Amino acid sequence: MILVLKENYDKEQLENLKNWLQSQNIDIHMSEGSHTTIMGLVGDTSSLDIDMLSTLDIVERAQRIQEPYKNANRKFHPDDTVVTVGDVKIGGGNFAVIAGPCSVESEEQLCLIAESVKKSGASMLRGGAFKPRTSPYAFQGLRSKGIELLLAAKKRTGLPIVTEIMDISHIPLFEDVDVIQVGARNMQNFELLKELGHLNKPILLKRGLSATLSELLMSAEYIMAGGNGNVILCERGIRTFETATRNTLDLSAIPMLRSMTHLPIVVDPSHATGISKLVKPMAVAAAAAGADGLMIEVHNDPKKALCDGAQSLTCEQFDDMKKAVDAVLPYACR
Amino acid sequence: MILVLKENYDKEQLENLKNWLQSQNIDIHMSEGSHTTIMGLVGDTSSLDIDMLSTLDIVERAQRIQEPYKNANRKFHPDDTVVTVGDVKIGGGNFAVIAGPCSVESEEQLCLIAESVKKSGASMLRGGAFKPRTSPYAFQGLRSKGIELLLAAKKRTGLPIVTEIMDISHIPLFEDVDVIQVGARNMQNFELLKELGHLNKPILLKRGLSATLSELLMSAEYIMAGGNGNVILCERGIRTFETATRNTLDLSAIPMLRSMTHLPIVVDPSHATGISKLVKPMAVAAAAAGADGLMIEVHNDPKKALCDGAQSLTCEQFDDMKKAVDAVLPYACR
Amino acid sequence: MILVLKENYDKEQLENLKNWLQSQNIDIHMSEGSHTTIMGLVGDTSSLDIDMLSTLDIVERAQRIQEPYKNANRKFHPDDTVVTVGDVKIGGGNFAVIAGPCSVESEEQLCLIAESVKKSGASMLRGGAFKPRTSPYAFQGLRSKGIELLLAAKKRTGLPIVTEIMDISHIPLFEDVDVIQVGARNMQNFELLKELGHLNKPILLKRGLSATLSELLMSAEYIMAGGNGNVILCERGIRTFETATRNTLDLSAIPMLRSMTHLPIVVDPSHATGISKLVKPMAVAAAAAGADGLMIEVHNDPKKALCDGAQSLTCEQFDDMKKAVDAVLPYACR
Amino acid sequence: MILVLKENYDKEQLENLKNWLQSQNIDIHMSEGSHTTIMGLVGDTSSLDIDMLSTLDIVERAQRIQEPYKNANRKFHPDDTVVTVGDVKIGGGNFAVIAGPCSVESEEQLCLIAESVKKSGASMLRGGAFKPRTSPYAFQGLRSKGIELLLAAKKRTGLPIVTEIMDISHIPLFEDVDVIQVGARNMQNFELLKELGHLNKPILLKRGLSATLSELLMSAEYIMAGGNGNVILCERGIRTFETATRNTLDLSAIPMLRSMTHLPIVVDPSHATGISKLVKPMAVAAAAAGADGLMIEVHNDPKKALCDGAQSLTCEQFDDMKKAVDAVLPYACR
Repeated sequence: MILVLKENYDKEQLENLKNWLQSQNIDIHMSEGSHTTIMGLVGDTSSLDIDMLSTLDIVERAQRIQEPYKNANRKFHPDDTVVTVGDVKIGGGNFAVIAGPCSVESEEQLCLIAESVKKSGASMLRGGAFKPRTSPYAFQGLRSKGIELLLAAKKRTGLPIVTEIMDISHIPLFEDVDVIQVGARNMQNFELLKELGHLNKPILLKRGLSATLSELLMSAEYIMAGGNGNVILCERGIRTFETATRNTLDLSAIPMLRSMTHLPIVVDPSHATGISKLVKPMAVAAAAAGADGLMIEVHNDPKKALCDGAQSLTCEQFDDMKKAVDAVLPYACR
Repeated sequence: MILVLKENYDKEQLENLKNWLQSQNIDIHMSEGSHTTIMGLVGDTSSLDIDMLSTLDIVERAQRIQEPYKNANRKFHPDDTVVTVGDVKIGGGNFAVIAGPCSVESEEQLCLIAESVKKSGASMLRGGAFKPRTSPYAFQGLRSKGIELLLAAKKRTGLPIVTEIMDISHIPLFEDVDVIQVGARNMQNFELLKELGHLNKPILLKRGLSATLSELLMSAEYIMAGGNGNVILCERGIRTFETATRNTLDLSAIPMLRSMTHLPIVVDPSHATGISKLVKPMAVAAAAAGADGLMIEVHNDPKKALCDGAQSLTCEQFDDMKKAVDAVLPYACR
Repeated sequence: MILVLKENYDKEQLENLKNWLQSQNIDIHMSEGSHTTIMGLVGDTSSLDIDMLSTLDIVERAQRIQEPYKNANRKFHPDDTVVTVGDVKIGGGNFAVIAGPCSVESEEQLCLIAESVKKSGASMLRGGAFKPRTSPYAFQGLRSKGIELLLAAKKRTGLPIVTEIMDISHIPLFEDVDVIQVGARNMQNFELLKELGHLNKPILLKRGLSATLSELLMSAEYIMAGGNGNVILCERGIRTFETATRNTLDLSAIPMLRSMTHLPIVVDPSHATGISKLVKPMAVAAAAAGADGLMIEVHNDPKKALCDGAQSLTCEQFDDMKKAVDAVLPYACR
Repeated sequence: MILVLKENYDKEQLENLKNWLQSQNIDIHMSEGSHTTIMGLVGDTSSLDIDMLSTLDIVERAQRIQEPYKNANRKFHPDDTVVTVGDVKIGGGNFAVIAGPCSVESEEQLCLIAESVKKSGASMLRGGAFKPRTSPYAFQGLRSKGIELLLAAKKRTGLPIVTEIMDISHIPLFEDVDVIQVGARNMQNFELLKELGHLNKPILLKRGLSATLSELLMSAEYIMAGGNGNVILCERGIRTFETATRNTLDLSAIPMLRSMTHLPIVVDPSHATGISKLVKPMAVAAAAAGADGLMIEVHNDPKKALCDGAQSLTCEQFDDMKKAVDAVLPYACR
């Protein structure tokens, strides 16, 4: 980290700062120019609070040179991480498609979709049991019953299952779940992340609605610091002023994260756009840009299952999308 | 809610939609023009998912006419809610200042600050025991020990205490806390909100970094739907592209929320700006705009307590700010 | 357009509103429910100011049913527009790559790059003569001399040229320019757009840094309303809170615009990301998502031409990128 | 400016960089640590392109130490600039209110409003003659006729007039206009700014919809670099994801700009919020936060002048607002 000092800094405050930094085991390199004095801080600067340092009276600016994430940092782990889920691999050249309904509604619905997406080539089944809903009056999911149905569908199809957790107290219910998803709204639920760091199970971590890529990696770091290195990152759109789409899918996050981290990167075009007809082109674009996988909402019958139509593909549309993605994959930028 | 249908909508899909809406106890008023068919939905539409409806094949657009929040809605509760915390009232013309350190560090530090801010006219003491930090390597707060110190300071000064909760499992530790704060990153931690709805204790709910005012009220609604009407809303800055300040303080939220809801509205200029010299002008502006209170970070000795300097006022600066706020309060727009 | 009236609206104000709307040749369909009164406005509503209407005392909400753009609207022009530039076609299945240096520096530099990108398959040459720079102290481009150099390179290579205009008074200088570019900062320079509407020359219109897709189309509408239908839209990244990339490239704009308009859509990954290593994956993703073309910054020798290195590809990198794009094009989603 | 070099930088590229920097009259101070090499650049770095430098192969990061604006920088001009418009002063403790209709409609309308706002204490008259409208089909203003009417109203009331310019070619029409306004959409119309820099007339420069404060000052710098130091800055709301208000008024811009620049700062709550009932609280808050002035839309009769109602105050509401602002001014933070 670099601190640029103000022109007429207080010498006593500088001494206080130096003493405090040394107490944190940080080495200090002073570089005094005619107008500008620069402090180079060397050591484990990941625990230093850059916001705090940058607003000290004597400091003009503070800037990190090293990223504050270590376990997630590609610099220290040059090889891609490959996350293994049953027979499925994701990352390091392995591409996986996770598909399924927004909400788990019934065993029949779920199995019908699971069998269909499996036939189309999906390698994991997703489905919401605990549903984070903006309104307390909206359907909150089948909860533990939903997880039972997912496990039944897994038994029937062999597909590993991915489903979202919303609270630490629910962890025991997720014992047989293959991949635990942390939703965008919980990306900085740090207590939850810490607990998930103690599990030995892949975690799919979604980017928050207004989270920077660096913050996404810091949240991954929370999980990894606890000992669980099986983290899959998921870009699912960020909030902007644009209203034509629900969120703005940030596909440049794929190559950018690729250079920052060794973790696999999955893209969810269904939630990002909120519009079913945009899912296929965005899925294909994500694959072309080098994503390690996709997460796609699929429902069975739009005429019957009214509540699922918003951003979901039908099974036929998913099959079509999967073929289009497969066609582009050999030419993907990785 | 209004649904505008597409020009050549499928009649069968319309029948399916009508049947489903009726099963939800929604009355339907059709209005067919030469080019446009409009469905007016009447009844308890708060549980309808507008995102889902707006993307149905036959629907061109969906628009709410009534707000999806009920308990928090001023339309149904014209009078201001006054939240009472010990002898302190907030809302309905009662202005309260909550002040204290970012993090609780020691009994000495806390009591020194508490006594000072009390003398300056603060009516509640804030202090972080559980600290949500972007980095797992940063100081995470004194946790339960921090709450003990807050309770000691309360005993010493008589000031009610406000502190942040980060997980449901910590609720028992907050039994003697006067106001439980929900931080910006947990604004949509719906499971936590539900649990807080079952308490009989004021909740200070901070606006998420990219939450709309409507979403803030929906999160308040989660708490209120559980039976706890003692919700205080807190504007603390939203995330924008501007980098000169940490966030952008949205003071128009004060009069806007005033018209939307009856709940008290508090402003936190310390976190919003991240720069101590901006705290006083923003505090005064918030008071002038009609806020019901302020939440201000105060530390004791910037030279010793290096880690607290970023956005905090010294006790002297707080005293000066408080006088400036008091001077403007009689002329506030309410 | 629909106006939803407030519950207890003033009858006299409604009469005033009706009279005024009729004076604008708008037909009115009233639909009165038990709680809600809806006014359907039929006719040429594109000149109505929705902001104004939505804040009238008696109006609860106003919503457009028809888009305010007509010439640019796919509904009224179902077939793709194909813009022809010399022998080059863009749109309607014709894919074109525009490549060249950020700034025109010298005839030698420009011709060297032009010949190289032509060999790699670029079909148009770009180069900045008038440079919009944030700082008045930064290099402002070679201006009219730059256009001369572009015309010389065109003569040498046969490539049509694309360059940016910054003011109406410069139009005469652009007489032999093949495509006039309107930069992001001038997307709502309405006087300029009007003048360009009177030319018979393709206009490449870049999306503003915080412009919605609807606003982009309204700016295209300014040009088209003047009689010039040869408008090429360009997505070049929008401003968000993310700082890892310069802007956030919004690739969902491609399929979204495709459904809104018949105009060709080009993507500029160089400016959007500001990072040369992200240009290839984003170019390939844009092609996969169905873009009609690309706009790419290319420079010749990064060691000599220091000032051009930021987001530009070398000629070799461009050749590599072009091959990757060509490989994915047969599988693009259109 | 500081350049942090990558760990294994190419020595030849460093030499190239050094040579180029020296050719720009920049002195270089190298500071080599065990892992990190830092280049300190001293001299007139305002013309260096930080984006370019930060993406050179050998550069890890680039950071400005000195602001790129000079004429606008408070560091070099510690005293407040006071802009004088006839008898009116703005800045340096002088507070001015600019009021008038959104669009000039008729001499009668304009004079009626002008006389009313003058009586209420406004010191300048605003009114749109050239209107930047998103839609080419919307009313574009009375243009030159509108300026004539403004001059007539000035003659009648003695109030100096403020009106917006949209193109260089219109400058002659503005000869007798007292303050020329540059709208948000033209904040980076650099050719226009350069021309205005050659006038000897105050310029009111509005912040762009997604402009940072630093960019706003760079645009002021364009005007000042041409020799015209009479620039008034105007905060008018930035674009965010929030939809309850039209834009988000950034009042922290007032104290933040105060520390960055010596130029006067005016706030326009009418455009920022787009909702007339929010204008008064935001005007009072802006005054309390230390603004040097306000810009307020006022219309005469909402029942007749239907088109002006959106965000405008009636003359009575303006009088009420002005009294509320005056009451708070003695306690403003400056």
